[in-house]
Amino acid sequence: MKNSILKILPLFLGGILFSQNFQDSIQFKKISDEMLVNSTAYENLRDLSLNIGNRLSGSKAYEKSVDWAVYKLKEAGADKVWKEEVMVPVWERGKESLQIKDKSGQWKSLKMLSLGNSEGTKGKDIEAQIVIVKTKEEFDQLPDASVNGKIIFFNYAFNQKFINTGQAYGDASKYRRSSASWAGKRGAKAVIIRSLSSSFDDVPHTGMMKYDEDDTFKIAAVAIGPKSADELEAMLKTQKVFAKINSNCTMKGEILSHTVIGEITGNKDKNVIVVGGHLDTWDVGDGSSDDGAGIVQSIEVLRAFKKLGLKNNHTIRVVCFANEENGVKGGNKYAENIRKNKENHLFAIESDGGGFTPRGFGLVMNSDKRKQIQSWKNLFEPYGIHNFDSQHAGTDIEPMQPLEVPLAALIPDSQRYFDIHHSEEDTFDKVNRRELILGAVAMGQLIYMIDKNW
Amino acid sequence: MKNSILKILPLFLGGILFSQNFQDSIQFKKISDEMLVNSTAYENLRDLSLNIGNRLSGSKAYEKSVDWAVYKLKEAGADKVWKEEVMVPVWERGKESLQIKDKSGQWKSLKMLSLGNSEGTKGKDIEAQIVIVKTKEEFDQLPDASVNGKIIFFNYAFNQKFINTGQAYGDASKYRRSSASWAGKRGAKAVIIRSLSSSFDDVPHTGMMKYDEDDTFKIAAVAIGPKSADELEAMLKTQKVFAKINSNCTMKGEILSHTVIGEITGNKDKNVIVVGGHLDTWDVGDGSSDDGAGIVQSIEVLRAFKKLGLKNNHTIRVVCFANEENGVKGGNKYAENIRKNKENHLFAIESDGGGFTPRGFGLVMNSDKRKQIQSWKNLFEPYGIHNFDSQHAGTDIEPMQPLEVPLAALIPDSQRYFDIHHSEEDTFDKVNRRELILGAVAMGQLIYMIDKNW
Repeated sequence: MKNSILKILPLFLGGILFSQNFQDSIQFKKISDEMLVNSTAYENLRDLSLNIGNRLSGSKAYEKSVDWAVYKLKEAGADKVWKEEVMVPVWERGKESLQIKDKSGQWKSLKMLSLGNSEGTKGKDIEAQIVIVKTKEEFDQLPDASVNGKIIFFNYAFNQKFINTGQAYGDASKYRRSSASWAGKRGAKAVIIRSLSSSFDDVPHTGMMKYDEDDTFKIAAVAIGPKSADELEAMLKTQKVFAKINSNCTMKGEILSHTVIGEITGNKDKNVIVVGGHLDTWDVGDGSSDDGAGIVQSIEVLRAFKKLGLKNNHTIRVVCFANEENGVKGGNKYAENIRKNKENHLFAIESDGGGFTPRGFGLVMNSDKRKQIQSWKNLFEPYGIHNFDSQHAGTDIEPMQPLEVPLAALIPDSQRYFDIHHSEEDTFDKVNRRELILGAVAMGQLIYMIDKNW
Repeated sequence: MKNSILKILPLFLGGILFSQNFQDSIQFKKISDEMLVNSTAYENLRDLSLNIGNRLSGSKAYEKSVDWAVYKLKEAGADKVWKEEVMVPVWERGKESLQIKDKSGQWKSLKMLSLGNSEGTKGKDIEAQIVIVKTKEEFDQLPDASVNGKIIFFNYAFNQKFINTGQAYGDASKYRRSSASWAGKRGAKAVIIRSLSSSFDDVPHTGMMKYDEDDTFKIAAVAIGPKSADELEAMLKTQKVFAKINSNCTMKGEILSHTVIGEITGNKDKNVIVVGGHLDTWDVGDGSSDDGAGIVQSIEVLRAFKKLGLKNNHTIRVVCFANEENGVKGGNKYAENIRKNKENHLFAIESDGGGFTPRGFGLVMNSDKRKQIQSWKNLFEPYGIHNFDSQHAGTDIEPMQPLEVPLAALIPDSQRYFDIHHSEEDTFDKVNRRELILGAVAMGQLIYMIDKNW
């Protein structure tokens, strides 16, 4: 008898597992079908991108997008929608220009963007000879006379050899973040950096920089496109080149702003599952990929759960974070508040890699939970989701890590993102409807599994 | 002693396998690095697309592209380049228009494209009432009076629920291919079809249709965009709508044309490995995705092998096939010739799914060979290549199947292809440089493995 049970038990359990897997695959298909046929994500993105456009936090456009998100979350069927207050920096760009002059003696304008959070030249012309370096090491070896009073051009190129362009971005990012401080400390007048771009076009890309706290002078920091960078490098091989920078960008203190939150209440308990993106963008393009896509995908998850009547056990909460780009104040405030309010969070996922065809999930959690999600891989494979090995989440949800909230990132294909990221080229026409929706499908499916199993 | 050997043997073999795998992974990285840094594929595609543009076989533009391919193969370092003669059909579009009239009595023009290989109205107006059906079954149930003398509108929609859009394309393709014959046999004056498009825009898509051999009348067949199709359907719910078609497209016999071939001679034998795409395109857009991408990727494989000095055992041959779009004469002729010349082919791969981010390979071969390729999966995964389960090759290489040549297709991500395929929207700006190159990387890596192991 005992023996027979031992023999039958694995078959029996196998049967349950098989049948469970089958049931889950049916739910996966329901979520996918509903979104591919009825999703409002693409039209919502069109509306947000074309009718509001770029929306740096602290700007009026950002506050318009707050009202928009409140409206869209209600329209999607949220049981509850609210705004979470948060103080954000106000950085304004203003007029700006970069000219260069070679031995011809003629000033020539280059396309440029001041780096985010940088201080400009207060509307005055800053003029100096350009000194080129390719790396931090080269810069450190420059004699003081080659730095002091000069404009340093950091021409570190995006490494095309990485398959995941996010790695190339990470590899080059210190030049955007820190070169103004490195050069400012040694008396340079300004820095020019080669944009962090996977393209070879002439589009400049902005993005956050940061002065060190001990910086005496906050020197101007501007980015130029890869083509201009190559041309400038070639010119500097044979002659002296001078630059003239005039810019008005400056930090103007802080202002009250909002993260927008909407949720479907849990049927069993008040534990929270977060799906989100950031509502703010840089002040160029329309921010469709960074991160309009993450916002409309997150709202789509809520819409589809509601429409399908999926009866979530736990509360599913869409969070449209404020100020990811130049401060992460929204993400930090959210984590602070859930700690204060003792809200138990089961899981959080962010989509902030663009609305490109999805390929997997980054997983930041203990190995038991990671292995459990990886064990669901066969359910995801028919949807093109194959990568479960990456270990990163998202800038806005990372402040929840000390609270031991299991975190994840939607991983879209990375090839096109850094062609347009933080530039005038980040526009709605770069987003494909089906790719965008499939990102929402993948997040919806993962949330379905976590809601049911955790 | 015997026992010890038995114990050591697996470790020893494991060591060889591990080290082999490691060596292969180094070669994979070399191929990837070379292409990502030095590839000429993207600039070649720019040149082909912008300076020659669309090139239906039988046209002058097609013959220009033949010269272009010969030049580019030599430039890439081919040991030998030649043109293979093939007779191809000459189909010309000419002027064409579609107007509709509702109860308002006003004629209104719709964007349209005659289907490839169809006969037009010889420049005369064909006018009749429109009768809508959604499926073949609905059409079969129409009374004769609703078909005879009418213009039948087949409004079968691309099924958005398929994850792989190629399946949705296959699902809808009979309406493009055969509806003119179905309707012509029952006395209809013409057919209008909803374009085979994954988009909801108003872009019409052409593509090949075929009259049955017993068709008494070859009626006109035109495609309209999804938006026009939806609007026309809505109009037909409440009123009679008439259509007026005027077109000049016609088949004008055959002409001598060419498939272009270039190769690197094998170091060990004359067995051939083919990598190819088709050089012809439809007569709209510039054919960058269908199939300029496959052509420049194939040339890139040859360039990189030559540049890296990979010393291929077998001959690696790039084949730029003629006339895939409206006859497959190039593919058929190639298979006929290798049979006649008794050229042993080890393997053939085609890229004809667009230059989108690559995801895998379709494999049409015996199960031993398929399993061997699947056993290399771990080498490909770092390059985002994860799908080895699909079983399709390419239209141009399928004629080699009776010769038992193992066949494969590069499988790029399918989400964007059918938004632009066979339409004015298939243009160079839709192709991303890195995505295009990564397709060439994947084919180069697979060919490297096959050259070494088969």
